[in-house]
Amino acid sequence: MKIGIIGGTGDIGEGLAHRLSHEHEIIIGSRNKERACTMGECLTEDLRGKGIEAKCIGATNQEAVDDADIVILSVNYKHLESTLAGLTGFEDKIVITPVNPISKKDYFFFDPPAEGSAALKIKSLLPESSCIVAAFNNISAQKWKRISEELNYSVVVCSDDEDAKKTVMDLVNSISELKALDGGPLEMSGIVESMTPLILNIAKYNNMRDVGIKFF
Amino acid sequence: MKIGIIGGTGDIGEGLAHRLSHEHEIIIGSRNKERACTMGECLTEDLRGKGIEAKCIGATNQEAVDDADIVILSVNYKHLESTLAGLTGFEDKIVITPVNPISKKDYFFFDPPAEGSAALKIKSLLPESSCIVAAFNNISAQKWKRISEELNYSVVVCSDDEDAKKTVMDLVNSISELKALDGGPLEMSGIVESMTPLILNIAKYNNMRDVGIKFF
Repeated sequence: MKIGIIGGTGDIGEGLAHRLSHEHEIIIGSRNKERACTMGECLTEDLRGKGIEAKCIGATNQEAVDDADIVILSVNYKHLESTLAGLTGFEDKIVITPVNPISKKDYFFFDPPAEGSAALKIKSLLPESSCIVAAFNNISAQKWKRISEELNYSVVVCSDDEDAKKTVMDLVNSISELKALDGGPLEMSGIVESMTPLILNIAKYNNMRDVGIKFF
Repeated sequence: MKIGIIGGTGDIGEGLAHRLSHEHEIIIGSRNKERACTMGECLTEDLRGKGIEAKCIGATNQEAVDDADIVILSVNYKHLESTLAGLTGFEDKIVITPVNPISKKDYFFFDPPAEGSAALKIKSLLPESSCIVAAFNNISAQKWKRISEELNYSVVVCSDDEDAKKTVMDLVNSISELKALDGGPLEMSGIVESMTPLILNIAKYNNMRDVGIKFF
């Protein structure tokens, strides 16, 4: 599958691209295409050094949408609306959102839009034929980046489109030791997103690092 | 410590009483004192058969509040307000709430009061000197009941009173293989409570039983 990562040079983008490019063709989207291309070349080279023939190219965010079957919105919540406003072509695509609307005072807290979650907000902003799927919300950027480490977490996947959900669950299960769990409809995405500030607080209050979650 | 369990003959009460009575004196509170006394006798007898000298007695809910250092509100959310309205004497007590405001349509969802969580609602209903602590929200009743099985989960503990939180975390850590995690202030209790409908849906959609949670 061709997977486009919007904001692919930021935050969790690099780790995502690295871990997904073992099995999939990756288009790293960025506002800075040159940077995305450099990252694509580095990743391809790095994987070749490990004996893996990966295809990982840089592109603009718009090209990443246009050329991909699945688009991952690897964007900070505060840039979400402006990023989507500048892009078109989401019709009939699977759009994965790992986005969490979080704010901070003494501690992190869930700060959702009126729609109830970032995922539901995205649904309201994109064409009706796009299939919005919330996934990867609770894995820390640092964990994505340390590519030599296994990811041994549960990933709750929520969507109103059962086929898209199944496709994304298969994608999740293709990464490291991640285990996809069907979390139900997109309405449940708010709870999944809200677990991220809780996880950040648990890390802070209990002197833990890069806390993840497992349901069993 | 003397631990009173309001609603101790219901739902999670029996398993809680059983697992806590290894190390603590338990007062099983109930609207039906006779039933609570029978349960207390059975539990004490059962534990004696295993070589454990436990003290586990039945009482009214009011007696359970009056005689305990720590009160656990083992009450269904829909009976919470009416139960508390009939009780007094919570001043200066630690009050543990495992209560989750949940509703159901095709799936379970979080259905909190205007305060934001059951714990925050309880805080608004009880005297200012009571120390409200949210804990044990995400462990299924069935898991509590099967006392021969270890409980190998994380228990997120939230409170605005640091001393009470520490006491409850120690209590959590005294049960089976449970691991208490400081989840921060009581304002975070809404997220912890909301994980319970998510867990119930995960169980339903993924054909799992008695799902629990671990942060690591």
